[in-house]
Amino acid sequence: MHPFDKALELEPAGDNRWRGRTIPEWANMVGPFGGITAATLVRAIELHPQRHGQPIALTVNYLAPIADGEFEIVTRAVKTNRSNQHWIVELGQDGDVKTTATAIFGLRRDTWADTEVAPPRVPAPDDIVASAPPFGVVWFDNYEMRFVDGAMPDGGEESGSSTTTLWVRNTPSRAMDFAALASVSDIFYPRVFLRRGQFVPAGTVSITTYFHADDEQLAAQGDDFVLATARAQRFSRGYFDQTAHLWGRDSALLATSHQIVYFKG
Amino acid sequence: MHPFDKALELEPAGDNRWRGRTIPEWANMVGPFGGITAATLVRAIELHPQRHGQPIALTVNYLAPIADGEFEIVTRAVKTNRSNQHWIVELGQDGDVKTTATAIFGLRRDTWADTEVAPPRVPAPDDIVASAPPFGVVWFDNYEMRFVDGAMPDGGEESGSSTTTLWVRNTPSRAMDFAALASVSDIFYPRVFLRRGQFVPAGTVSITTYFHADDEQLAAQGDDFVLATARAQRFSRGYFDQTAHLWGRDSALLATSHQIVYFKG
Repeated sequence: MHPFDKALELEPAGDNRWRGRTIPEWANMVGPFGGITAATLVRAIELHPQRHGQPIALTVNYLAPIADGEFEIVTRAVKTNRSNQHWIVELGQDGDVKTTATAIFGLRRDTWADTEVAPPRVPAPDDIVASAPPFGVVWFDNYEMRFVDGAMPDGGEESGSSTTTLWVRNTPSRAMDFAALASVSDIFYPRVFLRRGQFVPAGTVSITTYFHADDEQLAAQGDDFVLATARAQRFSRGYFDQTAHLWGRDSALLATSHQIVYFKG
Repeated sequence: MHPFDKALELEPAGDNRWRGRTIPEWANMVGPFGGITAATLVRAIELHPQRHGQPIALTVNYLAPIADGEFEIVTRAVKTNRSNQHWIVELGQDGDVKTTATAIFGLRRDTWADTEVAPPRVPAPDDIVASAPPFGVVWFDNYEMRFVDGAMPDGGEESGSSTTTLWVRNTPSRAMDFAALASVSDIFYPRVFLRRGQFVPAGTVSITTYFHADDEQLAAQGDDFVLATARAQRFSRGYFDQTAHLWGRDSALLATSHQIVYFKG
């Protein structure tokens, strides 16, 4: 089984409850990679028999590190409207809540449409050398990353810009879906590393992803690269924000994603 | 009492519970203005005896319109860490949940700091005529709005840009605080009106605000204007996103805010 799908394996554990477990392939410095946790919460809702529509918005809050081992997810459909549905999700271990989330799923309908922003002009992924970030952590091995700009610093040099742009895809290859898009929304190492030119303690506190693509547009991406770009806007007194865009190779804006990150130093 | 503070009056109604009520001054087309609801949820947490720190991030999900009358808010501190605290909040009426939220409060500490983005270059508020948006709704009267760009259309003309920039402050005047900043984060009429040059059915589904200013920086704003600017990035199959910046007159980036909006047409 693909390591992404293996991480998302959940068994029903009673009404609105699901049991899963961490797997070593997704280990981050402390606990699993936040993106795989976000993806697992999307999957838990997708598995729910009352699920209505496709993911529209997801906010995931990281309360405490998930320990290696089993976890339980509680999914609660708080309100189902005709065209959308609101969820509250909690992931716990031994009675301690480790992650909370709210999600909106919805039906898509044909409307007037436009994309107002454009992807950065970048070389094709085939023209860029794949690279491993210098502070290697296990989960990086699940992604092929080809950095256009703002690769992780390893020389101690500060940068005036927090922008990172990379082509990224699962390795081994795997078709894009909502869970995979939720995961790749959190692909960026902390922006403060880039600005400061070094590792400093930092971690995502909350991430919000808006899914602009519907299931058909996502399926059309196949297992191709996604162009992921992110920057911070303000670093202030222990927190900074990050705003990100995820583009298909066909220039479709698949998702926009925002997060607030704790840092020291 | 100031209409903003009147809307935020809450009485304790048991452990973790607060009772409030809608007031006519904040009426929107259906139910109250979403910003005042967000502010009320911030206030409910601020009143909680276990509250730890200042607002860092807030996500508010609008499940169903709040009816005129009383409501009950349940505030649950899911996890209190040394430096931050995670909340789940629900607002209900007669057992129906109308609004959910997650919030992160935290302690601020001195760190390296920088703002990477700059405010748009605009005339001072004194050089702009105050205007009332053409489709008048009651809550607009609580704000003085001076539009620099992208005022609400009233002539049926489409626009190629969804950007609106305005100077805004409470009327009557009132000092800035976290609740007021949460409210003004939702000040923008739906971006699709501007693009389409007309009213179409639309409503915020979920808004996330990151508070970059701490309490001292907010207090320093006094009752001055805030420069608020917002744009959409993609409109697609019934939903669009909006990304916003809230600047002090001193060019401090007070907050960044993002929302996903339902629309028809």
